Amino acid sequence: MNWKSVAKVLGKVLIAEAVMLLLPLIVAAIYGETTYWGFLIPALALVALATPTFFIRTRDEETNIYAKEGFAIVAFAWLIMSLIGALPFVITKAIPHYLDAVFETISGFTTTGASILPAVEGLPFSVLFWRSFTNWIGGMGVLVFVLAVLPKNNNGIMYAFRAEATGPSVGKIVSKMAKTARILYGIYIGLTVIEMIFLIAGKMPVFDGITTALANAGTGGFSVRNASIAAYNSLYIEIVVTVFMFLFSVNFNLYFLILTGHFLKALKNEESLAFIGLVVAAILIVAVNLVTSSVETITNFGTALRYSSFQVLSLGSTTGFSSIDYNDWPTLSKVILLFLMLIGGMAGSTAGGIKMSRFLILTKSTAADIRRMVHPREIVTVKLEGEPVNAQTITNVRIYFVTWVAIFILCGLLISIEEYGDFLTNFSASISCISNIGPGFNLVGPAANFSGYSYFSKVVLSIEMLFGRLEIFPLIVLFSPATYRK
Amino acid sequence: MNWKSVAKVLGKVLIAEAVMLLLPLIVAAIYGETTYWGFLIPALALVALATPTFFIRTRDEETNIYAKEGFAIVAFAWLIMSLIGALPFVITKAIPHYLDAVFETISGFTTTGASILPAVEGLPFSVLFWRSFTNWIGGMGVLVFVLAVLPKNNNGIMYAFRAEATGPSVGKIVSKMAKTARILYGIYIGLTVIEMIFLIAGKMPVFDGITTALANAGTGGFSVRNASIAAYNSLYIEIVVTVFMFLFSVNFNLYFLILTGHFLKALKNEESLAFIGLVVAAILIVAVNLVTSSVETITNFGTALRYSSFQVLSLGSTTGFSSIDYNDWPTLSKVILLFLMLIGGMAGSTAGGIKMSRFLILTKSTAADIRRMVHPREIVTVKLEGEPVNAQTITNVRIYFVTWVAIFILCGLLISIEEYGDFLTNFSASISCISNIGPGFNLVGPAANFSGYSYFSKVVLSIEMLFGRLEIFPLIVLFSPATYRK
Repeated sequence: MNWKSVAKVLGKVLIAEAVMLLLPLIVAAIYGETTYWGFLIPALALVALATPTFFIRTRDEETNIYAKEGFAIVAFAWLIMSLIGALPFVITKAIPHYLDAVFETISGFTTTGASILPAVEGLPFSVLFWRSFTNWIGGMGVLVFVLAVLPKNNNGIMYAFRAEATGPSVGKIVSKMAKTARILYGIYIGLTVIEMIFLIAGKMPVFDGITTALANAGTGGFSVRNASIAAYNSLYIEIVVTVFMFLFSVNFNLYFLILTGHFLKALKNEESLAFIGLVVAAILIVAVNLVTSSVETITNFGTALRYSSFQVLSLGSTTGFSSIDYNDWPTLSKVILLFLMLIGGMAGSTAGGIKMSRFLILTKSTAADIRRMVHPREIVTVKLEGEPVNAQTITNVRIYFVTWVAIFILCGLLISIEEYGDFLTNFSASISCISNIGPGFNLVGPAANFSGYSYFSKVVLSIEMLFGRLEIFPLIVLFSPATYRK
Repeated sequence: MNWKSVAKVLGKVLIAEAVMLLLPLIVAAIYGETTYWGFLIPALALVALATPTFFIRTRDEETNIYAKEGFAIVAFAWLIMSLIGALPFVITKAIPHYLDAVFETISGFTTTGASILPAVEGLPFSVLFWRSFTNWIGGMGVLVFVLAVLPKNNNGIMYAFRAEATGPSVGKIVSKMAKTARILYGIYIGLTVIEMIFLIAGKMPVFDGITTALANAGTGGFSVRNASIAAYNSLYIEIVVTVFMFLFSVNFNLYFLILTGHFLKALKNEESLAFIGLVVAAILIVAVNLVTSSVETITNFGTALRYSSFQVLSLGSTTGFSSIDYNDWPTLSKVILLFLMLIGGMAGSTAGGIKMSRFLILTKSTAADIRRMVHPREIVTVKLEGEPVNAQTITNVRIYFVTWVAIFILCGLLISIEEYGDFLTNFSASISCISNIGPGFNLVGPAANFSGYSYFSKVVLSIEMLFGRLEIFPLIVLFSPATYRK
């Protein structure tokens, strides 16, 4: 392991977080809040931690970062960012216990949006802003940010960037990595600002509009209202949020294609067509299921469609906003929602879950293998987006799936040690955390929160959220003793 | 597809079932029951169906049965056996509706033991015998029986035998297939008779002893008492059943090794050591969990150990007998039981589930792949029982796992269409059926049954049980349109 280079990149990440902590400071100034130490102390701590890394001298700094170093950078970056990003909550006394604050911060950065706060209304604006902002930072990832603002083209960090991005493979949009990162960030900021405008135009308070858009963009789902989006009781706002929950589960490369005039290529994208197909089918089935079942609050198909499309996209995009308590929905709807929670959004988006492209590779390669078994002489190839998928990618996706299931079962088991949640609570909490969604069912349902779990379970779920957001392998490198051997 | 050879083997299977239907006839005679038509009519129907196949002339009958034909034989054999094996229930009016009877028969043959009968006490002895006997027949499989009794060494049927046997790969014990089949059947009958003796010696009624041993041997779990093993309220009987539930989840090849004096080799078997380790760990954790939780009926560690070992082995061996209603057990115990239901017993046993050897290959190969990722230059091999596992076997196991999960989710979704079960009911019913266990949780818990589901759901679950017992691929061949194309 090339620790010097790892440390140098980490230093830049820490400075990036310090810069980001200045934003809630501005919010504190605007609202005249006395919370500024809550953000200044962690920012200064970050600068203090980062400073020594600028004096590290390496001869071949830019070329010797490989996959392993990339994983290590991302794992350490996210861990340190969370441990220090939790300090504002503790210092401002918004969340007195440090482990609770770490849970909330990891939940924020990983875009999970699971909360241990029974109520958020009444907290300082600056703290609420920081909370929603962690969703936004985590959505696109901090390495992209570092890449985007670095003065020179830092090809060595590409591995770290790849390790942080979502989905089975990340291509460069343009030849230069830094330019790719800038384009991605530009699209991200652009879409976020457009959503803010739409929300505020719909008479959402300005602060709510800004924070909701930030949390939505990261598919995080932290809300500044106790009742989440249901608090606004506005069909217009629900529609805007629903549309943007969809937009942020889309692979950002497609936006680049659209911006550069390749509409047709973007429209023909197999992954997005599959995602749209799945979401539309789910919305319709859930709506029919709701209207034919005996849910009290839903009496006609229009209302059913309103709630079903919001919840399907909220859980399918792994955002986790809620417009209704779906705990009393019939089993079929719950099973469909759980299935969507499992798959998640598209690769290269801010969404979590297994990702639609992995799901497609998994189903297509399995279908192909079965076909080979029935017709041994036939040549069967697995294609995605018109290109053949190579054997290594298929194997990687299968490994990913098996490991994903293993982590999700193991964490479900560990949080069941304490006698708190029933089976569906713990099962959905575990899916919710590895898929970075937020709410689950029963005791962790949309009207509830994660505060009832013991600190042991909270730590387990925090680690599970990191496994989900960083897509497993960086954390395996982090926890592997071999990483620290000479 | 070589349909002629498929038909000829199927003919033999049908005759085998006709012969087996004579046993409940004898039971009817002993108890002076008037149910004989219930067994004679299906037996005659089987003979009538089979007769034409004996006049099929093929030139190379014995050599041209390959994997595809093997799958087709097994799929058709089990389907026809179940459709006709259901008739005794309908004719004797024990189960008036044919689809209910098919569910019960498939549940029997697949050694699931899920029942649609709210009460079994009071049914004719001959019918109860047939019900338990289906568990026994399905445990070892009917192809092994056909192979064992065939006069000449029929190597061509090996593919069908392989398709019916459980686990990722089946080796011949001795060079001749027919001899292997006879040895397996001999061990099976021997162990069953020993259990009968033990049970009857423990003052279990003779009829109960015989049927319980039959259902236990197949790891089926059909009982002739409404309360299952709890009805006998006897620690001795519980211990005997627990021990035999373990013995029938063991790979039968190990018994052959022991019988031929290779004790050490049998003791060193990795799969059985892993299974024993898992079971012992589960028993201890569940017992501690029970005694430290607030379950009313369990007040000391002895009682906790008694119930935990019975239930862990009942679900872990996929038998499904019950000695207590575990629905009020704490979540941790339930999660552990569900995990055991998923893994099941060993390859080459009568147990269901994914099988311990597949689980070992799955975890070891994933660990190896992760190791390769962290240390790209290291050579990592996956070994099972001291032998390297080849890449194709690993791929097959991964495909199996993905398909297994897909079927289990799909069936869970389909049975949720009707508004009957809650999430845990449907989730556990789906696991229970694909793993061939029997009971699940809540509405399909040990004190309940499957009668509440609609016929649509019962058909879905019946097909799922067949998928589980035949290990997926034969049914894919059966349902694949390509099979019927010229």
